Amino acid sequence: MDANVKKTTLRMIPYGLYVLTAKGKGDAVAAATVNWVTQASFAPPLLAVGVKADSAAHALIKESGAFALNVLGKGQQAMAFTFFKPAVREGQTVSGEPFRWGSTGAPVLERTPAYVECRLVDSIERGDHSVFVGEVVDAGLAKAVDGRADDATLWLKELGPNMFYGG
Amino acid sequence: MDANVKKTTLRMIPYGLYVLTAKGKGDAVAAATVNWVTQASFAPPLLAVGVKADSAAHALIKESGAFALNVLGKGQQAMAFTFFKPAVREGQTVSGEPFRWGSTGAPVLERTPAYVECRLVDSIERGDHSVFVGEVVDAGLAKAVDGRADDATLWLKELGPNMFYGG
Repeated sequence: MDANVKKTTLRMIPYGLYVLTAKGKGDAVAAATVNWVTQASFAPPLLAVGVKADSAAHALIKESGAFALNVLGKGQQAMAFTFFKPAVREGQTVSGEPFRWGSTGAPVLERTPAYVECRLVDSIERGDHSVFVGEVVDAGLAKAVDGRADDATLWLKELGPNMFYGG
Repeated sequence: MDANVKKTTLRMIPYGLYVLTAKGKGDAVAAATVNWVTQASFAPPLLAVGVKADSAAHALIKESGAFALNVLGKGQQAMAFTFFKPAVREGQTVSGEPFRWGSTGAPVLERTPAYVECRLVDSIERGDHSVFVGEVVDAGLAKAVDGRADDATLWLKELGPNMFYGG
C-alpha cells in the first residue's frame, strides 16, 4: 500500500467541524475541535466520534461518561482554530467562549448553532484515537435551519485549501 | 428532547457517499451505498462505518472479516442510487458495475475514483446499525487528485435538496 495513495484516499472523506466538550471532576472542562464524527444508528440514536487517545477530552469523557458535540456553523472558523489549542476555563467561559452546563453535565457552548449531548455507551480503543459511541440524549438548535441542515455547518474544507486533520 | 430538533441537528453532519462491498462464501457479494463513514485513527489507520444491522453487507463483513469502501466521485449520483437497491451479481459485475477481487477478497469497483480495503478489527452492535471499525490495509486511486481530495468525492447533499439517509 502506497502511503501517499492511502493519505489522499482518506482525505476524500468530507467532514464537518465540531467542538467536543466534557466535564471532569471539580472544575475541569475539556473542549477540542474535532471532525471525525458520524451518526451510527437511528434507534437508539447513536453517534461515533474519533477522539485523540492522549487528549484531555478523551480522559474526561471516560471519567464522566458523557460528552457534548457543539456543531460549528458557517463563518465560525475562528472558533475552530481556538479549540485546536488546549482549552482554558475561566468561570462560565472556556477559551473565551461562554457555556452552560448541559443535562448530562457536559458543557454546551452558547454561540454555536446546534449541539447534541451524549451518554457514552461503548468505545473501541485500538489506535492513536479511540472511537467513542454515544447515545444522543439531548439536542438543541439556536434557531430554525433554512434549507439543507448540512449547509449550515462549517465544513473542514472551509478552513483553507490545505487544511486537513493530521497535517 | 424534541424529535425534530434531534433530527435536524443530526442532519447537520455532512457526509460523502461510498459503496460498501464485501464477499461471502461461494459467489455471494454485497454492495450498498453508505454515508456514515469517518476515519478513526492514523496509526494504525482505522475507519469506522455505520452498517445497517439487517443488511447483506453487515452479514458478509462479519463472515469475511473484511470490506472495501469504494469512494463515489463527483457526478456518480446514478451509481449511488443503484446501490440503494439490493445488489445483484452477474459474473464480474454487481448491479451492472464491473469489479475485481481486492487483496482482502472484498470486491473493488472498477469505475469509482478511489477505494480502501479494510480488515475488520472490532465492532459495536448496539442499534439498528452497527459500527464496524476496520484497519486500512490497501488503498487505490484511479488517477491523481487535483485540489482538495474531498472536493473529488460525491457528497450526500449532491443527491438532491431533500435527500438524507433515513428519509
